[in-house]
Amino acid sequence: MRDFLPADKARRERVLAVIRERYRVHGFDEIETPVMEEHGRLHAGIGGDNEKLAYNVLKRGLDEDAIRAAADDPSALTDLGLRYDLTVPLARFYATNRAQLPAVFRSIQIAPVWRAERPQKGRYRQFVQCDIDIIGDASARAESELIVATLDTLDTLDALGLAGGSVRINDRRVLDWMLESFGFAADERPGVLITIDKLDKIGPAGVVAELRERGATATAVDGFEAFLNRPMTLEYNPYGERQIRKLLPAGAPDEIVAHLVGIGAAVAAARPSTGSAPGGAESASGEGDSAVAGLERDIPLVFDPFLVRGMGYYTGTIFELAHPSVDYSLGGGGRYDGMIGRFLGQDVPAVGFSIGFERIVDLIDERADAASPAIVLVHDRDVPEAELLAVKAALIAQGSRVRLEQRTKNLKALLERSASDGYTAFATLAAGAAVDSLEVKPLG
Amino acid sequence: MRDFLPADKARRERVLAVIRERYRVHGFDEIETPVMEEHGRLHAGIGGDNEKLAYNVLKRGLDEDAIRAAADDPSALTDLGLRYDLTVPLARFYATNRAQLPAVFRSIQIAPVWRAERPQKGRYRQFVQCDIDIIGDASARAESELIVATLDTLDTLDALGLAGGSVRINDRRVLDWMLESFGFAADERPGVLITIDKLDKIGPAGVVAELRERGATATAVDGFEAFLNRPMTLEYNPYGERQIRKLLPAGAPDEIVAHLVGIGAAVAAARPSTGSAPGGAESASGEGDSAVAGLERDIPLVFDPFLVRGMGYYTGTIFELAHPSVDYSLGGGGRYDGMIGRFLGQDVPAVGFSIGFERIVDLIDERADAASPAIVLVHDRDVPEAELLAVKAALIAQGSRVRLEQRTKNLKALLERSASDGYTAFATLAAGAAVDSLEVKPLG
Repeated sequence: MRDFLPADKARRERVLAVIRERYRVHGFDEIETPVMEEHGRLHAGIGGDNEKLAYNVLKRGLDEDAIRAAADDPSALTDLGLRYDLTVPLARFYATNRAQLPAVFRSIQIAPVWRAERPQKGRYRQFVQCDIDIIGDASARAESELIVATLDTLDTLDALGLAGGSVRINDRRVLDWMLESFGFAADERPGVLITIDKLDKIGPAGVVAELRERGATATAVDGFEAFLNRPMTLEYNPYGERQIRKLLPAGAPDEIVAHLVGIGAAVAAARPSTGSAPGGAESASGEGDSAVAGLERDIPLVFDPFLVRGMGYYTGTIFELAHPSVDYSLGGGGRYDGMIGRFLGQDVPAVGFSIGFERIVDLIDERADAASPAIVLVHDRDVPEAELLAVKAALIAQGSRVRLEQRTKNLKALLERSASDGYTAFATLAAGAAVDSLEVKPLG
Repeated sequence: MRDFLPADKARRERVLAVIRERYRVHGFDEIETPVMEEHGRLHAGIGGDNEKLAYNVLKRGLDEDAIRAAADDPSALTDLGLRYDLTVPLARFYATNRAQLPAVFRSIQIAPVWRAERPQKGRYRQFVQCDIDIIGDASARAESELIVATLDTLDTLDALGLAGGSVRINDRRVLDWMLESFGFAADERPGVLITIDKLDKIGPAGVVAELRERGATATAVDGFEAFLNRPMTLEYNPYGERQIRKLLPAGAPDEIVAHLVGIGAAVAAARPSTGSAPGGAESASGEGDSAVAGLERDIPLVFDPFLVRGMGYYTGTIFELAHPSVDYSLGGGGRYDGMIGRFLGQDVPAVGFSIGFERIVDLIDERADAASPAIVLVHDRDVPEAELLAVKAALIAQGSRVRLEQRTKNLKALLERSASDGYTAFATLAAGAAVDSLEVKPLG
């Protein structure tokens, strides 16, 4: 867990303000839930491995006997816990407040979560998640809105120094169908997925070796190995039905492919400024409706048949946000149609996209916010308080941010630290000096 | 603990954005600390009664024996707790990060705190505090900057429907001197203060009765009773030395009075738009420096010799934010010069002002943010996703916030709920309709 000093905190708030504003513009509405949820909800099996990392809150008013009895059942010591993600609280929120929400509910959650991780580089015990979710829409429109809003947010963050990202996409049903088509049994598929998830790290040969080692159906592994070793590329390609089918074994189910194609068409339509595909290789695919035009575009969407995503609750589309400057994902999400039902007792389709705020904020330039002038008013010790406050108020009234600093022997050091705190100008004020002689000079 | 639905959350974020922006303009810098602090820090006696209300976090990895042993020492069950205020974390933050902070550090903290209160109206177990603090400045300039920034923030919130507030001010040293001058012994004064703090509720007669009941020095109570029953008013008066001395027993220490007068002068100087005092009754007090001019102004600052404030850590100036429409305070603060030293091992002057965000947000109008147009795009079920997303993107590009809604039988109800969610306009889109025929109409 970290303290954030002024420069860091200002940068974080700047990025959060952009994310919040862009999400809102796309028709999402921010909600907030308490940081604590009931212990039972946090440990209902939905949170996967994160459940083990939850911070539990000590029950209040436990007497000596209750504590002694809890030695046999430690869960009696706790009734609340800190949330480890924003998805479990969202499902609980939706179940609680459904009557007051629109039929299709588009939520924004920008809030910290807690995990009792072992300290390691890049992992924090308290970190901010930025989630958007659409509850109540089973169509590809939902995925498209999430992806468009996310890409637009990244585009807007460009101005803060973040280069454009792209979205890798797959569908859990594609994975399941593919594994079935190779001959993996239903009960071994979850294990196979865990291995495939390591493809980026250990490569095709590593995946095949691990599958054999864990004793997966041999003929299925053979078939999968041959498929993995086909000549093909996962490089950036025009997104569309032809490309998707090319990357999958023959016979992929039409319905799932259509869902993926529909997402691409809608994303392309929403990003009209994007150029057409290089070389026009995918042109004239002939489906004959207005959506098809989108398929030809060079959109930042990449079908990846080996994208898995760890969480067990995904039921359909899954996606990850990639960025050219880093080899880890900057966010991700997917469809989890089954989860709300666990809280509501009635199935409701849902899909979400989470931006990895902590990773993104590390990529943002530390440049000062040049839009608002910030003045350090360096004053002698003996300037009367009333005079100081009057000058400060006058500068604020002119639209500046103003910090008072009493002059020190080392004026240079004082000004340097002010500049590093984001101040852009300074003025000096001596006792008895005429206020209208105040001269504001640029800093650094 | 509460869920916040979209309309509430939007209002909260709007108010927080104003507070954050105004505080920053006044030269304060936002910081953030983790929500959990070490158990020992939270229970070092600084937090007063709030310490008892802390949520404690269960230590991880406790085995059966450790739990059984904890029956005799329940504190062994916990190592961390949720913060119950932002002052204890600030003192810890300053001690940790002092080397990286300016000599006079002006902090903003806008963050939730937790208290395990019994549920009652207007008390929440999770609520947001907005604190500004100045560490490292013992002069009246610090109080003045806090008060000016707070009043300016309230003025800015005016636009959101909050009428202007005023600040009641006193000094713990004034209280202590006053009680001593009546003859209360040093060891009975803290108890006497607890009784005086009830003056607003139980009135002068109630205070005197309670003092007699608790066995306070009889001659001292007699003197205090006579003083309380003097003819005088605590009504809004021009703030200045004459008024302060008039409200205190004769012989109040010059140094403390000068500190209070200096604050008023500086606040007045920073608010030049404020009119002069009614009738000019306090004019020409004759101190003869430029600060004095400020004393004549009708500033929203009221000296109240019976203002106490509950927390034990205050050492000097104390203040409360009052508001004409409510009979409770909207915030408060004071000087706590001794506290940082408890963490740092070296005394550092400090003073803070906390805005009661939860109370203020309740006073803010729910008016939609008219500045940004928000359009509900009502579409038929069969409009292709790509077309929908293209229209949405075009409206967003024109500067609108856009929510998609699939047409329902009861269009009127749909539009009414959209209006209540803050949307200001709508358009309808049928399948195959020419997009350039889209007509945006105002809502409601």
